[in-house]
Amino acid sequence: MSKFWSEKTRQLQPYVPGEQPKIANLVKLNTNENPFPPSPLVLKTMQAVTEDLRLYPDPNADRLKQTIADYYGLSREQIFVGNGSDEVLAQAFAAFFQGKQQLLLPDISYSFYPVYCQLYDVEARYIPLDEHFTINPADYYGAQAGVVFPNPNAPTGCILPLAQVEQILQANPDCVVLVDEAYIDFGGESAVALIADYPNLLVVQTLSKSRSLAGMRIGLALGQAELIEGLERVKNSFNSYPLDRLAQAGAIAAFEDENYFRSTCAKVIENRIWLTKHLSQLGFEVLPSQANFVFASHKNKTAVEIAAELRRHGVVVRHFPQERINNFLRISVGTQQQQQRLIEVLKEMLNP
Amino acid sequence: MSKFWSEKTRQLQPYVPGEQPKIANLVKLNTNENPFPPSPLVLKTMQAVTEDLRLYPDPNADRLKQTIADYYGLSREQIFVGNGSDEVLAQAFAAFFQGKQQLLLPDISYSFYPVYCQLYDVEARYIPLDEHFTINPADYYGAQAGVVFPNPNAPTGCILPLAQVEQILQANPDCVVLVDEAYIDFGGESAVALIADYPNLLVVQTLSKSRSLAGMRIGLALGQAELIEGLERVKNSFNSYPLDRLAQAGAIAAFEDENYFRSTCAKVIENRIWLTKHLSQLGFEVLPSQANFVFASHKNKTAVEIAAELRRHGVVVRHFPQERINNFLRISVGTQQQQQRLIEVLKEMLNP
Repeated sequence: MSKFWSEKTRQLQPYVPGEQPKIANLVKLNTNENPFPPSPLVLKTMQAVTEDLRLYPDPNADRLKQTIADYYGLSREQIFVGNGSDEVLAQAFAAFFQGKQQLLLPDISYSFYPVYCQLYDVEARYIPLDEHFTINPADYYGAQAGVVFPNPNAPTGCILPLAQVEQILQANPDCVVLVDEAYIDFGGESAVALIADYPNLLVVQTLSKSRSLAGMRIGLALGQAELIEGLERVKNSFNSYPLDRLAQAGAIAAFEDENYFRSTCAKVIENRIWLTKHLSQLGFEVLPSQANFVFASHKNKTAVEIAAELRRHGVVVRHFPQERINNFLRISVGTQQQQQRLIEVLKEMLNP
Repeated sequence: MSKFWSEKTRQLQPYVPGEQPKIANLVKLNTNENPFPPSPLVLKTMQAVTEDLRLYPDPNADRLKQTIADYYGLSREQIFVGNGSDEVLAQAFAAFFQGKQQLLLPDISYSFYPVYCQLYDVEARYIPLDEHFTINPADYYGAQAGVVFPNPNAPTGCILPLAQVEQILQANPDCVVLVDEAYIDFGGESAVALIADYPNLLVVQTLSKSRSLAGMRIGLALGQAELIEGLERVKNSFNSYPLDRLAQAGAIAAFEDENYFRSTCAKVIENRIWLTKHLSQLGFEVLPSQANFVFASHKNKTAVEIAAELRRHGVVVRHFPQERINNFLRISVGTQQQQQRLIEVLKEMLNP
């Protein structure tokens, strides 16, 4: 601790992101990146932009917002964009939950949420997932500060059906319900369809997963204009230009190439089915996933042992040392080649 | 005001960035961008990176930090990077000044500072510049929260000599002195040389000005490891990956192409001298600038009138409706062609 740090800085316990190992030829299945590259249109568009890089980007990202609005049948005032969905989430916590009591969120969930609570003085109440690791809507009725959950949830991959998301919205008319849809495009049904009816709904999405742009940091929020204006106030008090020129241009192209998007999402879903089947055959319990990862636990061998042995064979997956899920591994859906390598190593390990 | 907004969000008065007009063929001299494009090495490097964009960037930007450390003769633990120097400044306010009383800063200065003060509950004390619009070091002795000033100052362009920066550091051993060097490469002497001797010194820089990368959003802070660690705590509680892959790769290349950097800085300085001379000949008082802009006031015509008439001729400059500087215009150094156009329009306007 330094005498120069503010009191708040002394109290912080920062988030620890998934490892980004600098080792060549790893089968990297630990941070839920898309196994397929971004659309060729995205790359081509970004390469064409480079001459203007001496100039500031549009601070309001109007063209990108309009593109997203058109895509979802919303208006530009209903779209917010930021430097990855992590930044968007942070600003949503600041705009809607800051300083409030009783924010309801699942006990097993994205581990950045508790860090935001600390950063913005939000008192969190963690609600246990049920025995199937799913969310029970009734547990989230009558929140005071608001409600936050990922859908599909991470790291479980389990989806809450849209009708149940709507129950939570109906039961919380006076506070914001933030649905974090980082993984929605891999089989779930988005809550964007409910925005017109629920002024308390904020949907957060990212281009890091289904649009293969984790390397570019682009996130968005969708909701009624009143909520978006709150986010803009916070954003414009912090950093006017969160999205650089290449990110804005690439994001527009990513929404324009709908065919590429659909075909890569379909391939991820296909690979997830293959992965689930082969893990089950090897004695894993695999939770039903609608994301680009699976959450799996083996009946005979601990998750810690399996992860360590996989790593020795150049395969990296993610383990969370947390109660209830300590014996699970989160494995990202990979290319068919990566998944075959994973299963091959697991076969040798589990049936020697 | 919305019932969903947090109390803090209701109180915010966001920053308003300089206009980014979407009109073709403007002579755009209003936001201090570099008139010259980024180094060809930067563009080439960024184009080579695009295949990996599906993968997250290095959250710690280790290669970039090492490059900057080597460039300045510092260690990697003395370097912090962020999404533009605005984000770096915001996080510095959070890390070192948040919740404190009496932060000393000039009354005429970067207009984002008061917004950060509001965002992070810092009580600011604004100290008037002297009659020559320069900083008097003795006014900044014995601060409680800390000291912040740009050097060269913006929008005046005036430099505080390094010996006087050092006096301020000596007089404030127990709080952070933040020297915002956005424009230091256009003739000023950087305080980086003082880092080894002053644990209370934080230097903030940007690649938006002297390295022609405003479109990419890359800022940095340099200081002893204790201060940098404080910034990392705040950053890792907010957004793990603020710099995307292209920004990191481009920034490294920008520091590697030293010849290009030196030659474009020299051209900007040359153009500034030309601009100052011609404005003076037209009856402007021009403050002595060490930045990539000049701050000028005309003896007969108001700044508001001049700005409006320039705009009608397709030339955009910046005016700040603020006491003491209400009759000044901030004019970015442009290409020789842009500056000739500006002077031509002014000649017609002022000597009809």
